[in-house]
Amino acid sequence: MTSVVSSALDGFAAAVGADHVLTDEASLREFRDPFAHESWDDYTASAVVLPETVEEIQAIVRIANEHKVPLWTHGTGRNNGYGGPAPRVRGSVILSLRRMNRVLEINEELGYAVVEPGVRWFDLYEAIQAGGHELMLSVPDLGWGSVVGNTLDHGITYLPYGQDMAAQCGMEVVLPNGELLRTGMGAMPGNPSWHLYKRGLGPTPDQLFMQSNFGIVTKMGIWLMPNPECYMPLWLRVWHDDDLGPAVDTLRRLMLDRTIDHVPQFLSTILLASVMTKRELWHQGEGPIPDATIDRMGRELEIGRWMMRSGLYGDESVVDLRFEKVKEPFERIPGAEVWGTKYAPDQFPHIENAIERVQAGVPSLDLNEMTGWYGGEQGGHIGFSPVAPLVGRDALALRDLLRGMIEQQAGLDYMAALIPTNARSFVHVTLVIFDVQNEAQARGAYDTCKLLVREAAKQGYGEYRAHLDFMDLAAEQYSFNDHAFRRFNETIKDALDPNGILSPGKQGIWPKRMRESANGGS
Amino acid sequence: MTSVVSSALDGFAAAVGADHVLTDEASLREFRDPFAHESWDDYTASAVVLPETVEEIQAIVRIANEHKVPLWTHGTGRNNGYGGPAPRVRGSVILSLRRMNRVLEINEELGYAVVEPGVRWFDLYEAIQAGGHELMLSVPDLGWGSVVGNTLDHGITYLPYGQDMAAQCGMEVVLPNGELLRTGMGAMPGNPSWHLYKRGLGPTPDQLFMQSNFGIVTKMGIWLMPNPECYMPLWLRVWHDDDLGPAVDTLRRLMLDRTIDHVPQFLSTILLASVMTKRELWHQGEGPIPDATIDRMGRELEIGRWMMRSGLYGDESVVDLRFEKVKEPFERIPGAEVWGTKYAPDQFPHIENAIERVQAGVPSLDLNEMTGWYGGEQGGHIGFSPVAPLVGRDALALRDLLRGMIEQQAGLDYMAALIPTNARSFVHVTLVIFDVQNEAQARGAYDTCKLLVREAAKQGYGEYRAHLDFMDLAAEQYSFNDHAFRRFNETIKDALDPNGILSPGKQGIWPKRMRESANGGS
Repeated sequence: MTSVVSSALDGFAAAVGADHVLTDEASLREFRDPFAHESWDDYTASAVVLPETVEEIQAIVRIANEHKVPLWTHGTGRNNGYGGPAPRVRGSVILSLRRMNRVLEINEELGYAVVEPGVRWFDLYEAIQAGGHELMLSVPDLGWGSVVGNTLDHGITYLPYGQDMAAQCGMEVVLPNGELLRTGMGAMPGNPSWHLYKRGLGPTPDQLFMQSNFGIVTKMGIWLMPNPECYMPLWLRVWHDDDLGPAVDTLRRLMLDRTIDHVPQFLSTILLASVMTKRELWHQGEGPIPDATIDRMGRELEIGRWMMRSGLYGDESVVDLRFEKVKEPFERIPGAEVWGTKYAPDQFPHIENAIERVQAGVPSLDLNEMTGWYGGEQGGHIGFSPVAPLVGRDALALRDLLRGMIEQQAGLDYMAALIPTNARSFVHVTLVIFDVQNEAQARGAYDTCKLLVREAAKQGYGEYRAHLDFMDLAAEQYSFNDHAFRRFNETIKDALDPNGILSPGKQGIWPKRMRESANGGS
Repeated sequence: MTSVVSSALDGFAAAVGADHVLTDEASLREFRDPFAHESWDDYTASAVVLPETVEEIQAIVRIANEHKVPLWTHGTGRNNGYGGPAPRVRGSVILSLRRMNRVLEINEELGYAVVEPGVRWFDLYEAIQAGGHELMLSVPDLGWGSVVGNTLDHGITYLPYGQDMAAQCGMEVVLPNGELLRTGMGAMPGNPSWHLYKRGLGPTPDQLFMQSNFGIVTKMGIWLMPNPECYMPLWLRVWHDDDLGPAVDTLRRLMLDRTIDHVPQFLSTILLASVMTKRELWHQGEGPIPDATIDRMGRELEIGRWMMRSGLYGDESVVDLRFEKVKEPFERIPGAEVWGTKYAPDQFPHIENAIERVQAGVPSLDLNEMTGWYGGEQGGHIGFSPVAPLVGRDALALRDLLRGMIEQQAGLDYMAALIPTNARSFVHVTLVIFDVQNEAQARGAYDTCKLLVREAAKQGYGEYRAHLDFMDLAAEQYSFNDHAFRRFNETIKDALDPNGILSPGKQGIWPKRMRESANGGS
């Protein structure tokens, strides 16, 4: 630890109390990337500061400016598959907002909540239930993350309001100079439309604070959907790998006409199998699992070659009409089957299937099982997640590219969730799963992902979110007009954060004083 | 004209051709606020430059930087009720993008178009029809404006994609330094998801270029909705002024559960009457029209005290179910009536009622009639448009505040369209209508609007968009934390546009060199 950091830590301790500044090795270990091999220390923090109030954050930011100490902010610090809570710059001080965990408001009449950044999906869900509110929260697959943190990282959730990640409305932000900003209608004192109308007068900066390092979000509005009369989780199963093409084209038409009106997923056989079983049950040899075995897994586990998880939400009479409308075109694919079960709101928490429960807005950790696929005591994964048009030919092209490279370069299994976040595009979440304690396997997974970044970009597919270990490389691919977008972000970064204290390197954005050494990919 | 401007004009002429630089008085007259009294010259331009290509815009921006000449950009320059094409700073050079009027792409499979900023709603609609595409465009009430210009000013459109003004996806922007930026996936060369996925890797700057002066948008993606099987324009009529309260509450519930899934309007008696008749038919005395007369207008024109225009879009079977669901709760209001007529897509262009046609995506100019209300040869209006929660008590409170001030301060009639741009909030568009040639009446209208800005803000209602003549005053009300939002915008403005050449004063954002003289309201 440098003496600069050390004297900043005295200031932090004065601001938040010495109990809330962690520097011992055991504590710091909890703030590493949980999926990094234990011998790796590229992304190790020097300390963790845990404020409880906005004023404490402002004080911390001012001290960090004085000492030019980089702060790496997180809500709860999950971010699994993308680097967890670890900072991009070794020796940064982690600003953990876990103690800022208050649900500040739930408004049933207008369907929204206001939360602090330490509030987890579990916490907000529980607060809604405890208040007896007839409202649904669009949640991600794992409920332990921060509502704010997930939203700021463009995280995907699955209910109707998950489309275009559009549930956020209105923010409060501590700027790098310590000033407090409220966005949208919140810029007017006492304006009751802060969390109701998505803009204000003048430009709307909210999305400037997502996937960036321009400010620290301290409050956020999130829209909640009134419970529908009926929710029907809906499944499609197809038996041939190339059925993915027509299935994607059918889904696009059904999403464009708003029959399917939320965020579904296409899941590959091995990904689904990894939640239900261990790999050794199916394959003991070297290299990736061959097609014939994947076919057998599909038959024996009754999960086919691809399944689509989806749902219908609304009045029961409308759900019934839509079910028929969905079933007919999908079942034109030979062997394809579509089925669903209807539930009323009081049944949602008791739905047995974890995926069906997540789609009903009930957070869970059940879907975390897959990372144990390769055995070992600790499974890990990297998310490699490019965006593509929601068209069958793109889905097949991307599958072929990614499967080929993951199998041939890394010798790992291709496990994919294709997630249409709207009717026009999907995120191909590739889960590159490995045994964290097998360093060679882990290193191979990271190296392969870096190759994938470049190869996917050559074909026009860019990542929606990038892992800490290849943020620079991923950002590097967004190079139109000799990196005009990077220069634009740098101009804003330098103007708002001249000392470069907030999350340097986040999503490839570096402050001036670190640019020469850091740019150009890792 | 200063010599600085004059030497810049030589440069502009060299860049775009002398024919495309206008300086004669007759031409400049066309670029005034059409509703300003002829004797007013606060917002008069010194010249108009009309480029045809992105490269020409870049050249103009570089010349403007050299000479520090302010450019005021518009698409087509309609912006009626908010200042038309006129610049905030007298003597600015208007950068008119009317010649950049190409529809660059229409993609039927994925439902989007890409347009240049001079493309009008009429143009894009016609291009969609000419291509035989089964797609609908969400249009505003008047079709002569620019698709890009309207979108950048947070303009309201009425089809399902009009909700939250969310149809825009992906931009190309000339920055104040002349550099070309592409946003979202467009920042990656050759990425086919530019107009399909609303974000990129890193922060999303699109909304930073709306209602601002940070760049010149040269290309924009806009989403188009597939034609539904059925569209049913839907009308609600209520007979008592206070019926607005329960009607608003009922609408909120029907929008929250997505039964009504587009942008409706509540229209006051006089606003509707102004489209159908002239004022002198009803009232010849001094002062605003009294309630008893408004009641009589409502009866004789069969428009009640408030009407709601709305629509249902979808499969006919679903539209039928939804019609029953809408009718029942509204008709619990004593005397209220709900009716609708079903149309198939091939009938949309032939629907007789202009409002019903606009809601079917067919652009029109029919709704421009209202400005002739006070007689005279030229009617004008100011849009005073605060945002409020979509709650009956707010609707009534805002009506009382605005009606009281417009009648008492200006002696004018209260004419209102309450427009829920989503299920949670509405824009109260107050049309302050006057005879442009009656200077005292016109001045009274402007003065009253300035009072309204302050009074509405005191009650927590802020404008969604501000007229040129009180942009500073409206922005002044967004004063949280001693104007932190203004300082934030100024920081970005100074970083991106150090010479302050792009649209100085737009939405209250001034560049450094003009700040001392300009700030503090008009």
